Amino acid sequence: MTFDFSSRREALRRVLRERDLDAILVTDLLNIRYLTGFTGSNAALVVGATDAVSSEDDTVICTDGRYVSQVAQQVPDLRAEIDRSSAARLIETTSAPTLAFEAHVVTFAQHRSWTESSPATQFVPVSGLVEQLRMVKDESEIALLRQACTAADVALVELISRGGLRPGRTEREVRRDLENLMLDHGADGISFETIVAAGPNSAIPHHRPTDAVLASGDFVKLDFGAQVGGYHSDMTRTYVLETVSEWQRDLYELVAHSQRAGREALAVGAECAAVDAAARAVIEDAGYGELFLHGLGHGVGLEIHEAPGIGKLGTGTLLSGAAVTVEPGVYFSGRGGVRIEDTLVVREQGPELLTLTAKDLTVV
Amino acid sequence: MTFDFSSRREALRRVLRERDLDAILVTDLLNIRYLTGFTGSNAALVVGATDAVSSEDDTVICTDGRYVSQVAQQVPDLRAEIDRSSAARLIETTSAPTLAFEAHVVTFAQHRSWTESSPATQFVPVSGLVEQLRMVKDESEIALLRQACTAADVALVELISRGGLRPGRTEREVRRDLENLMLDHGADGISFETIVAAGPNSAIPHHRPTDAVLASGDFVKLDFGAQVGGYHSDMTRTYVLETVSEWQRDLYELVAHSQRAGREALAVGAECAAVDAAARAVIEDAGYGELFLHGLGHGVGLEIHEAPGIGKLGTGTLLSGAAVTVEPGVYFSGRGGVRIEDTLVVREQGPELLTLTAKDLTVV
Repeated sequence: MTFDFSSRREALRRVLRERDLDAILVTDLLNIRYLTGFTGSNAALVVGATDAVSSEDDTVICTDGRYVSQVAQQVPDLRAEIDRSSAARLIETTSAPTLAFEAHVVTFAQHRSWTESSPATQFVPVSGLVEQLRMVKDESEIALLRQACTAADVALVELISRGGLRPGRTEREVRRDLENLMLDHGADGISFETIVAAGPNSAIPHHRPTDAVLASGDFVKLDFGAQVGGYHSDMTRTYVLETVSEWQRDLYELVAHSQRAGREALAVGAECAAVDAAARAVIEDAGYGELFLHGLGHGVGLEIHEAPGIGKLGTGTLLSGAAVTVEPGVYFSGRGGVRIEDTLVVREQGPELLTLTAKDLTVV
Repeated sequence: MTFDFSSRREALRRVLRERDLDAILVTDLLNIRYLTGFTGSNAALVVGATDAVSSEDDTVICTDGRYVSQVAQQVPDLRAEIDRSSAARLIETTSAPTLAFEAHVVTFAQHRSWTESSPATQFVPVSGLVEQLRMVKDESEIALLRQACTAADVALVELISRGGLRPGRTEREVRRDLENLMLDHGADGISFETIVAAGPNSAIPHHRPTDAVLASGDFVKLDFGAQVGGYHSDMTRTYVLETVSEWQRDLYELVAHSQRAGREALAVGAECAAVDAAARAVIEDAGYGELFLHGLGHGVGLEIHEAPGIGKLGTGTLLSGAAVTVEPGVYFSGRGGVRIEDTLVVREQGPELLTLTAKDLTVV
C-alpha cells in the first residue's frame, strides 16, 4: 500500500496559506504518521507554507536516536533531525516568524516552556487542521479500512460457526477467541479492548469482559475491531443465546430500525447532528430516548474515534470519503441491552458498508 | 485487591495545603483511577484541600451517561455528577476561588476555553502532583505488579519449553504465542505491543514483529509485559538460536554486566541520573556508548512508562517503593542487538526483583 504523503503535505500547505500562516509545528503522532508515514513514538514535524513544487526545504521531521534508521526508511523524502526534545529542537531551528501549533494536542505546560525558551517566535494556536484533512479518506486508506473490517467480519463468522458463542463459556473466553481469529485473518492487532457483554452486562455500554458465564436466553453483545496498516475497524453485533423472549425481539427490532435509519441518513452534505437525530427519533418515538445513552457514531481511521463526531452536538456536514460508524443502542439496566454498529464510507452514490456481517436478529 | 483511595486523596490534600491551593481539577484518567478507582474513559475529578476527617464534601467526580452505574459501583464514597463535558461542569459548580489544573495534561485549547467560560476562577498550573504520589507503590499495587510479572515470566518459560522459539517460525507467530500464554497465566491483557525481533531486526530497539523468519544463529529479542488489575509488567530477554558466535557472546556478557550494575545501583536515595550512569559506564568503557541508544529505565505502574525516568537527564532520587525497569541495550545496526530488562521495586534492604526469568546467556 503506497500513500501519497507529499500530496497530503501540499493540502496542509494550502490550508496554511489560506490562513496566512508561515508554518505549522505538528506534534500529534498520528498526524505526523498521516503526513509522513513515520510510525515511531517520538517525533515532531514542521511543515512550511511555501508551495513545494520542486523541494520541501522548509519541512523537517525530528525524532530521537532510537529511530535513526526507521525515519530514514519511512521518510526518505524529508530532512530528518535527531534530537530527543524533538519539538523544542524544531522550534529552535525554524526560521518562520509565526509558527502555528496544535492547540488541542499541545499541553499548557509545553506551550509555556516553548514561549519561554523561544520568545522571538510568535506561536499561533490552531485546532484540527490535519484532522480535517484526515476526515476524508483516499482509496488507499479505504482499502485498509476494508481489510480491517473484513478481518473482523470473518473472525465473527468463524467464532459462531465453531460454536464459540454458547452457554457455559465466559465473556473472557469469547474475547480471546474473537481476538485470535482476527489475528488469524489478517489483523495486525485489535482496534480497542474487545467488549463481550452477556446477559445483564449487555446493558452496560462499555463493559469489560469478565468471568461471567454465558447463559441460555442471554443477549450477548460483541463490540470489536481489527487494525490493519494502522487503520481501525469498529463493529457491534448483539446475539441471543438459544431462546429469545418477546421483549428481546422488540428491543432488537427497535435498535435495528434505528440503525437502518442512521445508515440511510449518511448522505454527502448531511448535517452530522441530523444523522444522529434520524436514528434517535426512532428510539425516542418508542419512548426509550433516555436509554440511548451515547452519540450515534464517530469517524474511524488512524484512530478508533476521530472526526467527525455524529451526535446530538455534532457540528459540520458529512464529506464524501468520510469513514464513520453508526451504532445506536438501548440499554435496560439490570436486564440487557442491544447495540448494532457498522463502519461505512460516505459516498456520492450512497454509503458503502464495510462491515458485512448480517444484522438480522440471530439466535445462536 | 482493595485500595485505600481515601488515603491517596488525603495525601493529595496535604500537597495542596503545602502549596496553598484550594482545590485541584484532575483530568488525567489514570490519576483519577488512582485516586478513586474509576476506570471509565471520560471523567474529571475535583479534590478540595480541606482535611476530610469525616466527609469529602468538597471532592466530586463527574462522568457521562455511559458510566452512571459504573461510577456508583466503583466510587461509592464520592458524590458523582453526570455530564458529558465533565471538566467544564466541575469548573462551573466548584466554589473554590483558585483551582489547580494538570498543566502537563490539559491542552492549550482546553485551558483557553475554561478561562473564557469561567473568568472568575483563578486557574493555577501544576505538574505531576498525582504522578509524584503514584511513584511510590503501596503493597497492594506491588502485589498486582508481582502478578503481572509472574504472568510474563511463566508465559516465557512455557513458550521456550514448548519449543516456541525455533528456526522457521516468524516473529509474528512468536508474538501471538507469547501474548496468549500471558493471558493463559492470569494477565488481563498485554502491557504494550510485544516486540519480537530476530537476527538483524534485534538491532532495532523498538521493532514491530513482522513475517521475518527466525534462523539458526539469530539473536531473538523479546520485550513484552502483562497487565493485571491495571498494573503493567515490563521485561526483555534476548536469546540465541541454536549456535552462538563469539561476538554474540561478548555483546551479551557486556549488556548483562551493565544491567547488573544498573540493578545494583537501585538504592533508596540514589540519583536517577547516577543509576543510568552506573550501567552506562560499563558500556562506555567497552567503547560502545554510542550504541546504547536510550535511557536505562523508567517507572512502571498504571502506565507502562511513568515517573521516575532513569536516564542521562533523569532528575530526582529513588524513593522506597518505586517500581522501575533496568534495561540497557547495545545495538549493532544490520547485525543484531541485545537488551536485558527487569522490573524491580526499590526497597530499603535492596531492590526486589519482580521478573524472575534467568538472564544467563541462553541458547535455545
